[in-house]
Formats: sequence, C-alpha cells, structure tokens
Amino acid sequence: MKSLISVADLSKGDLERLISRAIGFAEGREGPAGNLHGKTVGTVFFEPSTRTRLSFELASRRLGAEIVSFDLAGSSASKGESEKDTLLTLAAMGPEILVVRHHADGFPERAMEWTGRAVVNAGDGRNEHPTQAMLDAVTLMRRFGTVEGLVVALIGDIAHSRVAGSLMKMMPVLGADVVLAGPPELLPEVSPFPVAGGLDDLLGKVDVIYLLRVQRERGAETDEEYHEGWGLDGARASRMRPEAVVMHPGPINRGVEISGDVADGPRSLILDQVANGVPTRMAVLAEIAETLR
Amino acid sequence: MKSLISVADLSKGDLERLISRAIGFAEGREGPAGNLHGKTVGTVFFEPSTRTRLSFELASRRLGAEIVSFDLAGSSASKGESEKDTLLTLAAMGPEILVVRHHADGFPERAMEWTGRAVVNAGDGRNEHPTQAMLDAVTLMRRFGTVEGLVVALIGDIAHSRVAGSLMKMMPVLGADVVLAGPPELLPEVSPFPVAGGLDDLLGKVDVIYLLRVQRERGAETDEEYHEGWGLDGARASRMRPEAVVMHPGPINRGVEISGDVADGPRSLILDQVANGVPTRMAVLAEIAETLR
Amino acid sequence: MKSLISVADLSKGDLERLISRAIGFAEGREGPAGNLHGKTVGTVFFEPSTRTRLSFELASRRLGAEIVSFDLAGSSASKGESEKDTLLTLAAMGPEILVVRHHADGFPERAMEWTGRAVVNAGDGRNEHPTQAMLDAVTLMRRFGTVEGLVVALIGDIAHSRVAGSLMKMMPVLGADVVLAGPPELLPEVSPFPVAGGLDDLLGKVDVIYLLRVQRERGAETDEEYHEGWGLDGARASRMRPEAVVMHPGPINRGVEISGDVADGPRSLILDQVANGVPTRMAVLAEIAETLR
Repeated sequence: MKSLISVADLSKGDLERLISRAIGFAEGREGPAGNLHGKTVGTVFFEPSTRTRLSFELASRRLGAEIVSFDLAGSSASKGESEKDTLLTLAAMGPEILVVRHHADGFPERAMEWTGRAVVNAGDGRNEHPTQAMLDAVTLMRRFGTVEGLVVALIGDIAHSRVAGSLMKMMPVLGADVVLAGPPELLPEVSPFPVAGGLDDLLGKVDVIYLLRVQRERGAETDEEYHEGWGLDGARASRMRPEAVVMHPGPINRGVEISGDVADGPRSLILDQVANGVPTRMAVLAEIAETLR
Repeated sequence: MKSLISVADLSKGDLERLISRAIGFAEGREGPAGNLHGKTVGTVFFEPSTRTRLSFELASRRLGAEIVSFDLAGSSASKGESEKDTLLTLAAMGPEILVVRHHADGFPERAMEWTGRAVVNAGDGRNEHPTQAMLDAVTLMRRFGTVEGLVVALIGDIAHSRVAGSLMKMMPVLGADVVLAGPPELLPEVSPFPVAGGLDDLLGKVDVIYLLRVQRERGAETDEEYHEGWGLDGARASRMRPEAVVMHPGPINRGVEISGDVADGPRSLILDQVANGVPTRMAVLAEIAETLR
Repeated sequence: MKSLISVADLSKGDLERLISRAIGFAEGREGPAGNLHGKTVGTVFFEPSTRTRLSFELASRRLGAEIVSFDLAGSSASKGESEKDTLLTLAAMGPEILVVRHHADGFPERAMEWTGRAVVNAGDGRNEHPTQAMLDAVTLMRRFGTVEGLVVALIGDIAHSRVAGSLMKMMPVLGADVVLAGPPELLPEVSPFPVAGGLDDLLGKVDVIYLLRVQRERGAETDEEYHEGWGLDGARASRMRPEAVVMHPGPINRGVEISGDVADGPRSLILDQVANGVPTRMAVLAEIAETLR
C-alpha cells in the first residue's frame, strides 16, 4: 500500500492484514517493524479536526516519525496562495507521507498526483474517511472476534456522511450485512442496501447500531424532533439484542443522536473507537512506510 | 502522588521533597529517574495560557514524554461537544497524564473522576494553581535557602486569584507568615491572615512583596489610580528591607502592578519564577510517573 | 557565528562555508556534527508565517533540538503584556536559540540584546530575511555550481521587501551582479544597482529572474495591470537565456507576479527554494550551536 485514498482500493486480504496489525499495536504485540524512524509525516487539514489530527500525530510519533502540522488558519492560504501551491510547498519541505483532510470530494487523490507523495485520506467531502471505517472494523473485531455475519445498521444522515461512504464500501467486503435508516431527505438516492422504515423496526434485528452525526446546519427538524424519530435512548437500547452494540464516529450530540445514558452505558463502544484510532493509523502508516524508498 | 489537584493535598514533607527535587532538576543534579519515556502527557486548556502550557510541555519533553496538546480553539468543543466528552475522547487516545486548565473551580478534580487518569491542575477558576505556588516556593528556597520564617505579602486582587488561593494554603505549611493588602473590594471576605491598611505600611516589614495581576475587566479604578494606591514603584521599593524581593506570577502589567524599573531591577524574581516553572513541573510529573502502572 | 541578524555580518568566507554545509545537509553528506541534542529552539513569530516557522522547526528537529513554538495568537501578548516581557518570559524557560520574526525593522537585534540569547532573524519589517537569501544562494549554487558572475534581476516591490534587502547585501559579496526593475513607486529611492526601464529589456540579459511578492494592500495597480507590466508569463519566459531560471520567495500569486505555466515550468526553482530552506537553516543552527556553552 503506497497511499490510502479509499477503502475500495483494499482487498479483503488487505483489510484483514491491516486490522490484525492494528490489533497487534493496540495489544502491545506488534513490535517496531516497519516504523517511521527518520521519516516525517505532514498533516494538512484544510478542514479542522483536532481529534483526527491528534490521532494521526500520536500514531506517527509512536512509530518514531517527526510531524509537520500545517495549520491552515493563519497560513499562507489566507494570503491568497492556492491550495495546490500550499500542498506543493509543504511537500517540498520533505515529508514522506501527507495526511490530508479537505471539504472537497477527491482532494486527497489530487494531492497525491500533485505531490507524488504517499497520501492518507483523513476525510474528503462527503466521500470517504477510510481510517475511520477501518478503526470501526478493528473495534468490532476486538468485541465480536469477527466482522463476518454481523448486521450493521447505519442511522441518520447517510447521504452526507463520508464515514457512511467508507463503511458502505468496507462492510460488505468483510462479510457484514448493512441496513440503512434515517430521515428520507438524508438517505442516498440509490443504494444497494435495504432501507428500514424506522429505527424501531431495526432494534431487535441488528448487532450494531451505528449512529451518524447530525449536521446541525442541515434539515428542518429540531434536535428534539430528530431525537424522537432517530435518536437512540435508553428505552430503545433496551430493545436491542443482548450482545448488540452502539457506535458513533464522534463528536456526539448528546440528546440528539444519542441519549447520555446510552452514550455512557455498557453497549457503547464510542470511546473504544477513539482508542482504536491510534493503533489503526499506526498500522496504515507502518504499511505505507514499507513502500518508501 | 497520583494527581495534583490542590496544594492542600500535600503535606509539609511532600512539599519539601518536591521542592528539593525541582531544585535538583534546575541545577542539573537530578538524573533521569522517574522519567516519562514511552508515556504521553495531554495538555487540555479550556482557558488559554501559552506560558503555562509551554512550561508543562517543556517539562514533559525533558522527561522523555510525548505531548498531545488539545487546542480547544477550532476543536470539537466548537461543534457542540460537551467538555466531558472532549475530555473522555482525549483520554481515550491514551495519555497517562492530563494537564488541565479551566475557568470553573473544581474542574480538574472532575476531569480526574471522569477519566480515571492522573490529572495535574494547571489552574481552575478562582480556586488554585498549585504548580505556580510550588514554583514560587522553589524560587524562594533558591534565594533565601528556606521559606520558613519569611514574611510574604500578597498584594492586589486576592479574592479572584487562584495563585493567591494556592499560596495562602501552602505558605503556612512551609512556615512562612502571610499578610494581605489590596483594594477592599478585592480582598477575601474572611481570611485567617492579617490585612494591612495599605501597601506603604508593609514595605519595611516583609521579605516578599508578591504582586497579583490586575484583571482589567474588574474594578472601577483606572490603571493610574491602581498604580498610585497599590503599584510597586522605585520609591516604594527603596523602602523595602535590604534583602526583600518582588514576585509576580505574570504576565505583568508595567505601570499598573509594578513599574518598569522595579520589574527589571535587582529585587525582581519574576524571571526566576518563570525559569523555575519547568523544573518544578518536571518534579511533579516525575513523581506522578512513579505511580503509573 | 553566535547569532544571525543580517547577512551584512557574514564575510564571503562565512557565506561560502554555510552554503557548503547546507548543501552537505541537503545531499546527506553532512553528519551529526554540531547538532542540537539536548538544546531547545524557541520560535517567536510576532508576524505569522507558517512556512518559515515549519522550515525552522524541521531544521531544529533534524539536529535533535526540542522546539518551543510561541504562538502569539491567544498568548499573553493579547493580555497586554509587552513584547519585551513576552520575549524575556520565553527566554527564561530556557531555549538556547530564539528564532524571531517581527514586523518592525531591527526587532531581532533588540531581542538579542534583551535576552542575551542567540537569535536568528526570521524576517524583520522591510529590513532583512537572511536565511531566505542564503537558501536562495544554496539553490543557485546547486543549479549553476557557483553564484559568482551570475546576473540576478530583482523584479517588483523592492522598496518594501526584506528578501530584496538581504539579497542586495549578499549577492555582491558572492560575486553576482544585481539589477532591479519594477513600478517606480516600488523601487528604492537610492540604490547602487542599475535599474532597468522594464522587464522586457532584461529578459535576454540575466541568469536569474527573481520575482518579489506583490503586497496586495500596496499600490494602485490592479492584479491584471501588474501582471501585464511586471508579471512573468510564458511568452516572456521564452525570451530568457536558455539556462536562465525563475525564483520567488513565496507564497506566489499565480496570474500576478507569475503565470501558472511558468511557476510549474522547467525554469522554475520555486520548490527547490522551499526544499533548500530546511538544510540552510540546519547549517545556520548547527554553526550557532557550536558557540553555545
């Protein structure tokens, strides 16, 4: 793997190997092989995300890399420099790997073409967020021992979610069944996956309720209306399968997608997802490191 | 010591041991014992303070730690995530020690309860700033050889100062006498310490004039009025005891709490305080490190 | 070399030695001698410049230094602390070398006097930007094998450019001939260098077209008028000497100082300049390191 732009570029074998390696890092079994000592990782976030950036930076440092963190607030971007020139300039400073987030679909691939560097997509527009999907797979693997055969319900704003974009590509490859539910205006226009009429219909039939973040600027519903229709509260959670779990890519809106008691309850894997982010990104970076030079 | 929330949690023996260790770091006599190699320190400043954050980060790196610096401007906090969730998310990324500053009294203790991590209070509301008080003790110890028996006058906005909050708890434990002076509306309503009628009454009777920062948003006095009533200028400094010193937690307002000539003069320990901040925080972090795992 | 305030402080021998060392770092031939292990470099940018700050930070880390990056947005500077006190405070935290950028001419020299630390000028007002000029010399040396005898044309806003300020001092020392051209109101009032009537007169007579950044807030010309008069486009570039090159300190304004095809074309050394920034700053910091303690 020279870059990671889309989960669609990864075979089932690739995914399984990366997940296994991530679990090795998480559980302290994976040694320093494939590390980034003497290498530099540049994080280039045209759209801010402190949590994702920190997760990549911690992963990079644990592999021995140096970090160049291109903070685009207050940078030359504000002096009228084009985004392409910003990227080329950063690349010229020498980082072997660029971690790129941008609000436009497809930007990380262009970054790869422009710079010739290894690029990791840290989220592009409504398109993909591959390391998020992979850390979710790592989280499920550590909880259930497998992803194969799980029924995963994606709930909410599927049409605009890059996390859903990556999950819908990856989950079938790993053998999970995907089902969708959400307000009609937030569902994709076409989809190969079954769409449930409501959240309540799904509760007893799935292993994973994966709640997507509500973008407050979208939709006419109030937070209360959304929570009533699509939020997971204690009453609904009590109707889930005994072993079923709740996931969310964060940051969560308590009282909107999820009630506080469910977020903090035993079914919630939300903080496990965060914790698995660092070893998952270590696995991705370590594989890319092996292709450098 | 597993966390540092309040100086009130430290016995005289604890304080003396930490001060001694800090002096060891400052003077290059303290070796790498108790270091933070392979550990991560997360700084979480809900209220900005570049100088305090940098001091903790330098201390952490000198002990071999990695840093995760959670910059709350531009973070998920601005996307409506609760402060508790921000903290839990950061903690899930793996830092063993969190350094927390917040505008609310008691927040660091709650952070410790929520996350189960070691927490160092880097300033909470009007309550405490324990490492500032400790670095002040280190500074006095290095100047006078002891804190025991010194007379320390706290001047100014005592009611709203967390630095004063920690000093008033710590100084008596170390055997110093504390006396207060300031505009009546900025004095605590009740206090075990004597209150002087004015700054001039105190000048020849104390070993330490500790000037507190004026919060410009408070009080009806102009800067000039404050300086006339409570500011330390050259004329006043000339009436201090021969060996007496001037301290200030910074950032100073020249011409308000202190005149430029006094700030830059031989009695001023203001930059010594800054310099002692790094080894003092090293001592605190090194002790906490010994309790990890 | 204890500090680097102005290129005028460097003899021809100093420059040649530093350039040679920078090329050694760039080409991997320079070992770890003179490194900064156990030392701290503080970057103090009163005027933001992400690219210059990152270049210095990468250079520092490659020499083994720790970094303290004083971000002046959100710092005590905004609480009314004087710039002198901000610098003294940062210096008290222990960095051996300060890298200083400021909008006022001469500020880095004052920083050196106030703090007693080694200071590297990272750009002061309209005065100097010595490491930029040096990295330009490194770039030319790597391209042409020598700077001696080259004819270098500085184009544009020479009066307000600190890059031009350093280049006009350094280039003659290295044996290059300098010629100026630009809108009359942006030329220096007096200058020892010949001034060309227009860009077109120069194209076939020089080895280097060095385009200076247009400050959009200055001058009455529109971008289009500037480009027509002083911008380097493909037609003009085709009239340059066969081996002649194009340089720019960045960030570039495509369509103003330079057309996109020239910026991305084979004559352009713009990204080489960026790439040479890191080893040039390593050379400067390594020399300063040898004078510490």
